[in-house]
Amino acid sequence: MYRSHTCGELTAAHINTEVTLAGWVQGVRDKGFMIYIDLRDRYGITQLYFDEEHSAKDLMKKAQKLGREFVVQITGKVIERASKNPNISTGAIEVLVSELNILNTALLPPFTIEDKTDGGDDLRMKYRYLDIRRNPVKDNLIFRHNVTQSVRNYLSNNGFIEVETPYLIKSTPEGARDFVVPSRMNEGQFYALPQSPQTFKQLLMVGGMDKYFQIVRCFRDEDLRADRQPEFTQIDCEMAFVEQEDVLDTFEGLTRHLLKEINGVDLDSFPRITYDDAMRLYGNDKPDIRFGMQFGELNNVTQHKDFNVFNSAELVVGIAVPGGNTYTRKDIDKLIDWVKRPQVGAQGMVYCRCNDDGTFKSSVDKFYDQDDLSKWADITGAKSGDLICVLSGEVNKVRSQLSALRMELAERLGLRKPNEFAPLWVVDFPLLEWDEETERYHAMHHPFTSPKPGQLELLDTKPGEVKANAYDLVLNGNEIGGGSIRIHDKATQAIMLKHLGFSDDEARAQFGFLMDAFEYGAPPHGGIAFGLDRLVSILGGQETIRDFIAFPKNNSGRDVMINAPAPIDDEQLEELSLKLNLKS
Amino acid sequence: MYRSHTCGELTAAHINTEVTLAGWVQGVRDKGFMIYIDLRDRYGITQLYFDEEHSAKDLMKKAQKLGREFVVQITGKVIERASKNPNISTGAIEVLVSELNILNTALLPPFTIEDKTDGGDDLRMKYRYLDIRRNPVKDNLIFRHNVTQSVRNYLSNNGFIEVETPYLIKSTPEGARDFVVPSRMNEGQFYALPQSPQTFKQLLMVGGMDKYFQIVRCFRDEDLRADRQPEFTQIDCEMAFVEQEDVLDTFEGLTRHLLKEINGVDLDSFPRITYDDAMRLYGNDKPDIRFGMQFGELNNVTQHKDFNVFNSAELVVGIAVPGGNTYTRKDIDKLIDWVKRPQVGAQGMVYCRCNDDGTFKSSVDKFYDQDDLSKWADITGAKSGDLICVLSGEVNKVRSQLSALRMELAERLGLRKPNEFAPLWVVDFPLLEWDEETERYHAMHHPFTSPKPGQLELLDTKPGEVKANAYDLVLNGNEIGGGSIRIHDKATQAIMLKHLGFSDDEARAQFGFLMDAFEYGAPPHGGIAFGLDRLVSILGGQETIRDFIAFPKNNSGRDVMINAPAPIDDEQLEELSLKLNLKS
Repeated sequence: MYRSHTCGELTAAHINTEVTLAGWVQGVRDKGFMIYIDLRDRYGITQLYFDEEHSAKDLMKKAQKLGREFVVQITGKVIERASKNPNISTGAIEVLVSELNILNTALLPPFTIEDKTDGGDDLRMKYRYLDIRRNPVKDNLIFRHNVTQSVRNYLSNNGFIEVETPYLIKSTPEGARDFVVPSRMNEGQFYALPQSPQTFKQLLMVGGMDKYFQIVRCFRDEDLRADRQPEFTQIDCEMAFVEQEDVLDTFEGLTRHLLKEINGVDLDSFPRITYDDAMRLYGNDKPDIRFGMQFGELNNVTQHKDFNVFNSAELVVGIAVPGGNTYTRKDIDKLIDWVKRPQVGAQGMVYCRCNDDGTFKSSVDKFYDQDDLSKWADITGAKSGDLICVLSGEVNKVRSQLSALRMELAERLGLRKPNEFAPLWVVDFPLLEWDEETERYHAMHHPFTSPKPGQLELLDTKPGEVKANAYDLVLNGNEIGGGSIRIHDKATQAIMLKHLGFSDDEARAQFGFLMDAFEYGAPPHGGIAFGLDRLVSILGGQETIRDFIAFPKNNSGRDVMINAPAPIDDEQLEELSLKLNLKS
Repeated sequence: MYRSHTCGELTAAHINTEVTLAGWVQGVRDKGFMIYIDLRDRYGITQLYFDEEHSAKDLMKKAQKLGREFVVQITGKVIERASKNPNISTGAIEVLVSELNILNTALLPPFTIEDKTDGGDDLRMKYRYLDIRRNPVKDNLIFRHNVTQSVRNYLSNNGFIEVETPYLIKSTPEGARDFVVPSRMNEGQFYALPQSPQTFKQLLMVGGMDKYFQIVRCFRDEDLRADRQPEFTQIDCEMAFVEQEDVLDTFEGLTRHLLKEINGVDLDSFPRITYDDAMRLYGNDKPDIRFGMQFGELNNVTQHKDFNVFNSAELVVGIAVPGGNTYTRKDIDKLIDWVKRPQVGAQGMVYCRCNDDGTFKSSVDKFYDQDDLSKWADITGAKSGDLICVLSGEVNKVRSQLSALRMELAERLGLRKPNEFAPLWVVDFPLLEWDEETERYHAMHHPFTSPKPGQLELLDTKPGEVKANAYDLVLNGNEIGGGSIRIHDKATQAIMLKHLGFSDDEARAQFGFLMDAFEYGAPPHGGIAFGLDRLVSILGGQETIRDFIAFPKNNSGRDVMINAPAPIDDEQLEELSLKLNLKS
């Protein structure tokens, strides 16, 4: 036993108790005749005390020599602290040390182990084990544990069985790239790491498991965007004998449970919006509804005048910025520059001030009179003191531009409050989406998603209009979960794969096992998968998932701490029947 | 809503209730004017009833045409069953069906979906989704879920934090072969899949996480023995500021909790045995102590006579077979043949009958008198009616041979009772073991295991004698967990790696990050890892781990259901900067 108590445990109730503690030296304050040391472990900080009156000379000397992050074990008596610290649980006491045992020394850490550190991202990644000692990172990891425990207990208590599916599976051509794993025992053949356990969970439904979940690692070999990881964790769920409503109910229950248990927030039933409405009102299929600023479409009230920009536009659409009339001309010019940045891509922006006296002042007063502008205000919901921002152009582009502007303005206005939670179901997603690059339709969710009843026929004539039994759960402007009711008969699955460009042979080679399974009594089924990393970061009120992953990889997919990936030796390659074929 | 109740839910209390059920047709008994159908789901079986008096003609016809494993939804009224079935929870009722909806048809399954199936292993693997519908497999998967939930809740309640460590890590040369994953973004470089999260959990200890666990997939590219899988699941645990005693206490607590919660078995504190004693008394470092039959070493009482086989043997060792004197001469000859099989490898076997009248009759009566033989009986603990079996030869070989015989005889005698649980700690393992093939010492546990205090010096002179702070938890003759107190200082780790044949450069390249970490304040730490697949199968009272894995691979590492691994296309190889280099 290295300790009788942790460093976060002692209170006034322990005064006069003899205790043994172990932990890291957070800091030494040496006042000559008195020494104070903050001893830290996962549970807290306890102040150690030495002075000339009570402590042996040798002990004082030993204490004086301790460096930051030394690992020590001490024995001593809990005493009342002269100047109490009400901010920490152990603030009422200190330990008068009688024995000090150095368990390990420490080099000077490359950055300070404090809540606010001086370490940059790269350094913190390289010495992640030191970064984890810092409260913000440590607390995030514990928070993540609490969330996953809460998820598991909720699902278990609701009849779900966690089943482990394999990680060494088969490569599929659909969607993102697979990571592959050469097989030594099966020469020239490869496993793939799962992008999700999709087909396995469907097979479990065919197998009668009824309610399945798994908190499971998934892998995607994509070029990494800022906040993506090549491996990520999913709460993967599937249910048999369900319709969409059953799935939404169940996982609304899970989400409400989490918000209550983890965040102490009680929520009413979650609002729902169709995909089409989400695009129309927010220009986005994952709208942040913590604030309003819904889009108002202005075509009908703008296109009868001589303003060619609007007349020639497929869509004219605006939002009301609350209190935006306080913006100076310069502020507005900057905003116009912002929407014209390549990342946003608007051609320009028309604005209209809503003055306190009820009048309007727009950048297009030449074309629109007060009466016109008052209609803009009505449609966008602008009030006196607001600013109306209007963009125009091709529907999809202008919606995405105005959505970006809406989010940016909300951020600036402080409307995206991290501790406010606004969940939303987005339903009735299109089954397919057109891909400009490959010039064909792709499955918007995945190839196993079922079309809405009766819409299968539309696949031949108007594939882009077919709606799916697919849904996303959106929280604070982030998609935290997405799922669908699946196809559960072979014929429909075959039609679907054909429309996605699979030949019969390809369909057979890739998904034969699933289509075979559908012939042996597949029940109707559907499910959902949550991105755990994202979910945890949003519940934690933070932006980046990386802060909730113990050992994340950087944007090149590298673990800079262990320096992976790395070359392997020729013998290993030989055993795998592989040769390098370097481009450079 | 496809159903109002499950097929395992209805009892006499529901009589006269209108219900809707959904499930699989287990069987149809068509008696012409009456039809009985067993409807099955995960939760049970409910009998459906149709008859000419109550059911429409169309409905009767529809019911008659149902095949096995059809998926149906029915509505009807719960009625009392005429002939009750006390063996199932729904045995008091049946449902008089008023509506029948076929949700999906089914081809005739390739094997019967019954507790006892006619399907062979290969067929059951290929159609695993049908195998999972069978109670024995389904129940095993649910059992596994219950065990993991119990583990997680126990560890969480005891202050352990589950932390997810990466699956894409770096290849290490130690031990079994790694599976590797080529990196597209880092040309010519490879990740490896972890054989265990060993170094990461140690870094978490350096990072102050204090108590870590993870139920985690691990990967080993080994030639597969009968009951090995290339991917397997580990309950991985680590604690800081602990000595061996703390680790044993904690995980004895976990195991006792599991045996209580899962099996309803209350156990006293677990016995302990040193590795040396385990080898001496059982010839095995994972002895099954559900029964006695300890080894008795007979050198002192055999080597003074003229029997050269014993005189020249390094070890003469015997066991008492309870009641073995009933064996005929023929039985014993067969036993001698058994120990001479190449898998066991003994040269022969000496035996001694312990007659009921207190006399002895041995196969070497020419050399040993009654007095000698009575000493054999004393040492092996043989009583009247027993048979003493004696093997002799080189210590390690003969111990392993007698251990095999002991297990075989216990099996035949029914002493290995699946529902009896006898845990045992084996402690004081050697640090190193000699490998004949590579002619050098390997780490018996792994290179991070610490030698016993004060034994580091022996590494140079008597490396084989150095004992480690390493321990195994054995249950019913299976190692279910193993761990050690780790090295936590750079100098010791460097000495250890040197003795394992690493050059300084190799040590640096492979484990530099860990040794660096040890310089920044590493606490003393240690841990354990349980093989979940094995643990679950033993708690479930069964032999093979495969029956507790949803989608296991076969002995060639293949998933025959999805047909993986498989070739990948040239484009994919090209992207990974690889070429095949086939041997054949």
